[in-house]
Amino acid sequence: MAYSPAVQELMESLRCLPGVGPKSAQRMTFALLQHDRSGAGRLARALQTAAESVGECRLCRNLTEADLCPLCASGRRDPGVLCVVENPSDVQALEDATDYGGLYFVLKGRLSPLDGIGPGELGLEGLEARLVAGEIREIILAVSPTVEGEATAQYLAGMAAEAGVEIARIAHGVPLGGDLDYVDAGTLSHAFAGRSQYR
Amino acid sequence: MAYSPAVQELMESLRCLPGVGPKSAQRMTFALLQHDRSGAGRLARALQTAAESVGECRLCRNLTEADLCPLCASGRRDPGVLCVVENPSDVQALEDATDYGGLYFVLKGRLSPLDGIGPGELGLEGLEARLVAGEIREIILAVSPTVEGEATAQYLAGMAAEAGVEIARIAHGVPLGGDLDYVDAGTLSHAFAGRSQYR
Repeated sequence: MAYSPAVQELMESLRCLPGVGPKSAQRMTFALLQHDRSGAGRLARALQTAAESVGECRLCRNLTEADLCPLCASGRRDPGVLCVVENPSDVQALEDATDYGGLYFVLKGRLSPLDGIGPGELGLEGLEARLVAGEIREIILAVSPTVEGEATAQYLAGMAAEAGVEIARIAHGVPLGGDLDYVDAGTLSHAFAGRSQYR
Repeated sequence: MAYSPAVQELMESLRCLPGVGPKSAQRMTFALLQHDRSGAGRLARALQTAAESVGECRLCRNLTEADLCPLCASGRRDPGVLCVVENPSDVQALEDATDYGGLYFVLKGRLSPLDGIGPGELGLEGLEARLVAGEIREIILAVSPTVEGEATAQYLAGMAAEAGVEIARIAHGVPLGGDLDYVDAGTLSHAFAGRSQYR
């Protein structure tokens, strides 16, 4: 072994990052140690702080080190509208692309009884309590149009109907600039079935 | 901003890794925080240890946290033969591919006076002292066949000649399995000019 223990350990630890194989880990190790010690120190501190302190937001289940995430804690968002997404990264994507002014709810997964993921794992009991308490007047579903996503959407629709809450779902169809030729058959049939009146 | 400060800081710190852009940093952040806290902690410790303790080997200038790197400290390598490489990663590549039993010398760069990289920056003064002291009887050059690499090779050849040390250079030419059609013109002309007698 040509590497010293500390260099070897750093190279192996970098493999925990998704998409980083042995060659990338080696390249990252040498880049950090030769040209960016301060970056390495900063990353070490950020990792430690985040790994120790980040939990989930009490209301929306997004990742945060505080009790409430910045969006739920903000007084400028409409707490009566809730957009349900699957992943924390979906929140940022919607924030970047839309002018949505309500709050979010992060499922961190999809209903999948075979994998042991039921309503409890997705935090839907807490959400149901909030619906029943009348805190929320509208739900917007932004879950994926997969089998598990559809099951999740159905379950949420049932909850909303019981609590008398309006429920909508974002449109799925041909993406802007998408050539019909290149769009997959599932999306195309979905877009065709979901056509709306053109005025 | 939809991210909490600790999550945001981790995402930005990951950008110091080569080849990691905003999307990859986001993906890594969520993967670590949602599925691999222990990996994040291990990486944080490895980064901190390495950034604080790793310096260079007194003899070969390879990265190590000790006074001597594992190869220079090993009693089983021939200290009379020195292979000169440009980067720490070259050492591992040669170790993996050859049964070379001597030591290495890592330049960490190439002679490039315009960029302010002279013999001093490459640690060649220390190497010259070792040559003059008669510690080394053979040098093998494994520097790249670029303009700066050639200049470095020439400089080392001068040093070796003065100290009466044998000097060799690894062969550059058509790679094994390389189709002549697809080999670049520089490599091909190099391979043609450097032909050796076939027995």
